Amino acid sequence: MKIDIFPVGKVRNRANDRQEIEIYEEFSEALEGIEKFKYLWIIFWLHKISPQDRKVLQVHPQGNISIPKRGVFSTRSPVRPNPIGLTKVEFLKREKNIIFVRGLDALEGSPILDIKSSND
Amino acid sequence: MKIDIFPVGKVRNRANDRQEIEIYEEFSEALEGIEKFKYLWIIFWLHKISPQDRKVLQVHPQGNISIPKRGVFSTRSPVRPNPIGLTKVEFLKREKNIIFVRGLDALEGSPILDIKSSND
Repeated sequence: MKIDIFPVGKVRNRANDRQEIEIYEEFSEALEGIEKFKYLWIIFWLHKISPQDRKVLQVHPQGNISIPKRGVFSTRSPVRPNPIGLTKVEFLKREKNIIFVRGLDALEGSPILDIKSSND
Repeated sequence: MKIDIFPVGKVRNRANDRQEIEIYEEFSEALEGIEKFKYLWIIFWLHKISPQDRKVLQVHPQGNISIPKRGVFSTRSPVRPNPIGLTKVEFLKREKNIIFVRGLDALEGSPILDIKSSND
């Protein structure tokens, strides 16, 4: 089965207390009403993970070698077969196709795959 | 930017109170230690969403036409540019490369993209 995924935006700028997500113009309409939500789920692509890293199936949790290795599906390690990032962020404001959030642990330039409203 | 994602498993069987996820043998090792967690995040592909549906950027929330249309990023609609499903499930048990969970709202046959442990 072929999974055809494309970026809908990217992480444009990040400071400790505020991160900027640019949603590409063609998807801008999909942001309408996002101001209603205090929290959002950001699903992004960990673009710095190498093809070699994607073959690693077990890691020391938190990179701590004193903790025995565990399967990546039972961790939050960025190293995993599909390096998908998932973070709940606080929504701050929107300016057209840019949204400002707090709590996004993504590198600058990370492709955004999806955004979902959070119910809590 | 090309995003190269592949299924690591699929939803094999689903009843109201228990759903089965098969992780393909080659990724089975990545499940090691998953028994430690009460809750997991399942990231899956909504394989019944058509290419045409993926172009829809605004919907009536919950399909309720009395609620004005909103951008899909401010909803949990399955219709979105990248139809990625995200559900927090209760972990029940593991039998080799099969895990049994509760609360997964995915159709049978849905490709699994990633699994992450939940901290709460």
